[in-house]
Amino acid sequence: MAFRPTIAAFGQIDGQLAVGGIPLQRLVDRVGSTPFFAYDRALLTNRVKLLRSILPPQIKLSYAVKANPMPAVVQHLATLVDAFDVASGLEMRTALDTPMRPADVSFAGPGKSEASIRQAVASGAVIEIESATELSRVIQAGDQVGVRPRVAIRVNPNFEVKGSGMRMGGGPQQFGVDAEKVPALLADLAIANVEFLGFHVFAGSQNLSADLICSAQRRTVDLILRLADNSPPIRYLNLGGGFGIPYFDKDQPLDLSAIGTNLAELIDTALKSNLPDARVVIELGRYIVGECGVYVTRVVDRKESRGRQYLVVDGGLHHQLAASGNFGQVIRRNYPIAVGNRLCEEVDEAVTVVGCLCTPLDLLGDNVRLPHAEIGDLIVLFQAGAYGLTASPTAFLGHPAPIEVLV
Amino acid sequence: MAFRPTIAAFGQIDGQLAVGGIPLQRLVDRVGSTPFFAYDRALLTNRVKLLRSILPPQIKLSYAVKANPMPAVVQHLATLVDAFDVASGLEMRTALDTPMRPADVSFAGPGKSEASIRQAVASGAVIEIESATELSRVIQAGDQVGVRPRVAIRVNPNFEVKGSGMRMGGGPQQFGVDAEKVPALLADLAIANVEFLGFHVFAGSQNLSADLICSAQRRTVDLILRLADNSPPIRYLNLGGGFGIPYFDKDQPLDLSAIGTNLAELIDTALKSNLPDARVVIELGRYIVGECGVYVTRVVDRKESRGRQYLVVDGGLHHQLAASGNFGQVIRRNYPIAVGNRLCEEVDEAVTVVGCLCTPLDLLGDNVRLPHAEIGDLIVLFQAGAYGLTASPTAFLGHPAPIEVLV
Repeated sequence: MAFRPTIAAFGQIDGQLAVGGIPLQRLVDRVGSTPFFAYDRALLTNRVKLLRSILPPQIKLSYAVKANPMPAVVQHLATLVDAFDVASGLEMRTALDTPMRPADVSFAGPGKSEASIRQAVASGAVIEIESATELSRVIQAGDQVGVRPRVAIRVNPNFEVKGSGMRMGGGPQQFGVDAEKVPALLADLAIANVEFLGFHVFAGSQNLSADLICSAQRRTVDLILRLADNSPPIRYLNLGGGFGIPYFDKDQPLDLSAIGTNLAELIDTALKSNLPDARVVIELGRYIVGECGVYVTRVVDRKESRGRQYLVVDGGLHHQLAASGNFGQVIRRNYPIAVGNRLCEEVDEAVTVVGCLCTPLDLLGDNVRLPHAEIGDLIVLFQAGAYGLTASPTAFLGHPAPIEVLV
Repeated sequence: MAFRPTIAAFGQIDGQLAVGGIPLQRLVDRVGSTPFFAYDRALLTNRVKLLRSILPPQIKLSYAVKANPMPAVVQHLATLVDAFDVASGLEMRTALDTPMRPADVSFAGPGKSEASIRQAVASGAVIEIESATELSRVIQAGDQVGVRPRVAIRVNPNFEVKGSGMRMGGGPQQFGVDAEKVPALLADLAIANVEFLGFHVFAGSQNLSADLICSAQRRTVDLILRLADNSPPIRYLNLGGGFGIPYFDKDQPLDLSAIGTNLAELIDTALKSNLPDARVVIELGRYIVGECGVYVTRVVDRKESRGRQYLVVDGGLHHQLAASGNFGQVIRRNYPIAVGNRLCEEVDEAVTVVGCLCTPLDLLGDNVRLPHAEIGDLIVLFQAGAYGLTASPTAFLGHPAPIEVLV
């Protein structure tokens, strides 16, 4: 069966998927109803441990809250990672509610509102400036709040990273300041009442090629060293992330050790000597949480229509849009799926799993091979820890909101 | 400029877009903040009037609440249409809160929850049965509530409708009961304590070809006449809808008069004589509300990046996912867009309009030609009345929820 590693990571108890060590039927009773998202606390811990064991100790880990902003998840990760990246005022408040120091919270994103910039200034978070306009807003907010803003420049690099699921750097971009415009912005910064910390480069996300990620990291360091020639001392350097996770049948997991080796070389050959004071950060969202979560639904109907078997579940694209193929994908492919209470049963039919919405878009598993499932059985979608609930149109068709638990 | 008719329908006052007769800047002040959705009450009224003037008087109009469930919109339409179609317990409550009679509310959708079926039975709404399992749930709910359920059968026809944006009938489907299985279900119904009213066939949505819609209506009537041979008298026949609206540059508006002529013929030649007691319903969602709404955002940044001009607005795909191309579209195309406070100014540049989310998916206008806009100007996306706010991931990245107004 495909995606055994994904499912095996959770483990099974008496033929049921285990989440947080709890067999699925019992977890359903504990949660109280389906559908729900469940995130596995131990898997989150292990994921960060894995990163720590392979990446050089000098590398700081930042969690991109946007991937999964559930407060309990963010609280748990606050004890494990070194920093948080946030993309809105609400994410900032969630981050600041944890033991994480405000100085280790960075705030990025185009079109930051004046209110959220003020929040960031008042909190002492690092504001990653994406345009000249934004710098002027930050300076103004600093005056108003009476606090010297702490800033970094988000740089749109002069190269592209191939292989990214989403490209966010190189060529024209709404993100960051074009590398060639950074010297002028640094000149503006030098005469402003702000504390300059360093640079942030985020060139793309969901990349499964270690070679391409390593190459992007090398080019990023080259670029930053050039920019550093004309900048105040660099105390902060966010190299971005972009580490992908396998969603589909033929996806191969990322070779993390190659990335660790590359980062160690970069530290030894370039960063230690040239940027001795820089706190070097890798920013990861999906890679930390994506594989640690499942979306659990119950079969409410089983239908045969003109030779095709359908399972209708009580969830759907209103909770897990990405699994329906409607969020960023070009060609729809099936996310890993299982009958969570029949994990060890023989795969014996091809079924189409659909959600309960009255739209043909609500397709969760197209002609997938599963053990025979009946009404009441639990259909589990994997890789649901990142960009799941909050990236879905929960109000669509007015069904009840799903539950999230961290176990 | 493209989509003049779409924009012209709203009108302009002193160079500003008018919504509900109010110039946009004033509307922004009245609403209190951007971004927001505004629906035009008079356009809604006119749309229903247009339908009434072209469709035969025997045709009843049902509004599919899923297209836009804003309570004020549903209340307004309750005074204009003859029936509501709902797809969840919440939509049902919204419909029942209006003066619409419960008997004129129909409830469709695969995987209806037991709780929502019970609600429907208790209210007296028409439950459109989509499977044998659902019939048994309806019977049980009727016993429990002590009310005889009012039911129709949703039929998956034995033909497909070409040209639909989304196909919901023909071939294998999760929707409805395959036409060839209807006789067996009718036999079950005959001995159950339920009131059988008739049939519902909904073969597809967002179709811009009147020929294809007319053909589907003819085939639907043929199918229903055949099914009626072995059914109790038909008192309700929902022919579905599927009337499309023009979203993109080359889309031509639907030829409504051809559909009116076809329906008149069907009434005269087939329905009047064979199904004299049938209340014949056309169910429309998008066609009624889609063109009556706009999504209004404000420019928060203007950037040039490597030769490309960007406008960053305070809204984005978290409110209007469809306009970003991430909801049901295969190839992303631009929705109609305008600088709402510079409606009469010369189009003088090509710009890329992006939302404020930190993701490259958040693209609202790709290289669109607009009058020159600056920070503070109002960017308006049209065709935002249907499948806008509720079909979008509002919690994505934690930005404030947008406002909706009916003016």
